[in-house]
Amino acid sequence: MNMKTYSREEIESVLVKSELIEAVEEGFRQYSAGDVVVPPVGHLGFDNPPGDVHIKYGAVKGADTFTIKVSNGFYDNPQLGLSSSQGVILVFSQKTGVLDALLFDQGLITDMRTAAAGAVAAKYLAPEHVTAVGVVGTGIQARLQIEFLSEVRAFTKIYVYGRHLEAVNEYISDMSAKGYEVESVEKISDLAKAANLIVTTTPAREAFLMAEDIQPGTHITAMGSDGPDKQEIQPELICNADVRVVDSRNQCFLYSDTSYALKAGLIEESSVVELGEIVSNASLGRTGDQQITFADLTGVAVQDIVSAELILAKLGSDSSLSN
Amino acid sequence: MNMKTYSREEIESVLVKSELIEAVEEGFRQYSAGDVVVPPVGHLGFDNPPGDVHIKYGAVKGADTFTIKVSNGFYDNPQLGLSSSQGVILVFSQKTGVLDALLFDQGLITDMRTAAAGAVAAKYLAPEHVTAVGVVGTGIQARLQIEFLSEVRAFTKIYVYGRHLEAVNEYISDMSAKGYEVESVEKISDLAKAANLIVTTTPAREAFLMAEDIQPGTHITAMGSDGPDKQEIQPELICNADVRVVDSRNQCFLYSDTSYALKAGLIEESSVVELGEIVSNASLGRTGDQQITFADLTGVAVQDIVSAELILAKLGSDSSLSN
Repeated sequence: MNMKTYSREEIESVLVKSELIEAVEEGFRQYSAGDVVVPPVGHLGFDNPPGDVHIKYGAVKGADTFTIKVSNGFYDNPQLGLSSSQGVILVFSQKTGVLDALLFDQGLITDMRTAAAGAVAAKYLAPEHVTAVGVVGTGIQARLQIEFLSEVRAFTKIYVYGRHLEAVNEYISDMSAKGYEVESVEKISDLAKAANLIVTTTPAREAFLMAEDIQPGTHITAMGSDGPDKQEIQPELICNADVRVVDSRNQCFLYSDTSYALKAGLIEESSVVELGEIVSNASLGRTGDQQITFADLTGVAVQDIVSAELILAKLGSDSSLSN
Repeated sequence: MNMKTYSREEIESVLVKSELIEAVEEGFRQYSAGDVVVPPVGHLGFDNPPGDVHIKYGAVKGADTFTIKVSNGFYDNPQLGLSSSQGVILVFSQKTGVLDALLFDQGLITDMRTAAAGAVAAKYLAPEHVTAVGVVGTGIQARLQIEFLSEVRAFTKIYVYGRHLEAVNEYISDMSAKGYEVESVEKISDLAKAANLIVTTTPAREAFLMAEDIQPGTHITAMGSDGPDKQEIQPELICNADVRVVDSRNQCFLYSDTSYALKAGLIEESSVVELGEIVSNASLGRTGDQQITFADLTGVAVQDIVSAELILAKLGSDSSLSN
């Protein structure tokens, strides 16, 4: 058996943000071109203790591998001294079905490919000159999104909004240490008025980013609305946007901020563009300085597939790793 | 990481037929009692080279583990000197989501749990006195079914039907070596008339076992109709049966020999019993010597779940294995 097993540390050691953004960008292009098979996500839920198992899998047609990601969220694990994020990414040969590798990334690849998607959206949609980035939320994505955005736009100023003072202060401290100039705001509307690139990264279940607060020329990426009942963006904001982008029509028409705007009859399905279509044809993205653009990212298995393939290729060629 | 990896040989070394039958019997009981979560099977298909990936997963509620089985059939593999049956069974803790073990069984557990299901069906449905077993097909299941049936009924006489003389002769030779008295038949109707326990194990796409040939008191188990377009049993035979059993209503009403009888309007859904219901209440099974009984087995993930749990428990307690 030639199966390789890699730890989170090994995976982290070969991850390069710019390469991941490039891979995810190409993955979205292939996805929207119909070159990726992504069956519906599998799910198992447990009550006692509470746990969620998600099985995301798929393949780029004709590629060397296919990928099955098992993401287990067991929320009481920290009480046992274990990470709540468990699971494994399985990479198989698309030529023989043989299991090539197990990536025990403990959620790292999901975090990174999610941030990479935000960077791809910003690359095609954010204004050329970013005056400040507004971040709603203070968790992992609130940090990673910034670091990945820095790969595609130059900025130093960040406005951050969080509900817990301690988390906000920790965020300011951490991100200041990375060279950003970070300021917290009391109201989300203040952030919306001051930044022309806004990223929402919360598990909110009610819209908090309002149409009336958005300035012309702003791009907004919503990351948080990745399941039923989650909502971050006022539907009227999406209606007002000049360009409306989703990572996956299939997913975003079912749930996501975009789905609320559709259900409210404020926008038509035909007015929504997939991110991968913009990668193929940039003229579908931002075409003017004063446009408001909106990207709704729910996470697509192709991001896992291309990320795993990239990481494996790099791990395989890194002879300093002993496996 | 305490994840254990087991090979086919290690798994085989701890497999005891009677224990597996008992585990699968209890699994069916739990399944029909609603104590098992079995989401729809995931599927990925490839064309070049041809390959099928099936993801079967689920959990017995409140058990220690949950199981994800990835079965990869890559049909050109033998040309590369590889088994066409690839994949892995992943066993996770239901308490923490941690991956406990990988079973590289190369299809062994699927083969065994499929044969065990046949034995469970025969335990409750076959006549007490089996005069002879009739087997249609000469492959792995045509062999394993016999060996597992021997755990629940006493018999030595086997009639076999196969389309290829060479395979039939090999079957006769192999099974004779195991102490059975094996005779081939020219026509399936001959086998049906001579045996009162019949097992069909073929990938046929047209019914070959006819109502008119079945003798009173016979039990028939159909194993082959495990997907759309497959068929082994004449719908009229199922209509004539006094007891009609399926492993899973969900699956068998969708595809299976039973589904053809339903679509033809020959039987009502309400006349079909689940095998697990019979395990709970044997009076739902055979109640008379002269009854014709029919069991339609399509394979349910609970069989994999309980088999993997049994095997892991035995491997874990076997100190002669070094992992």
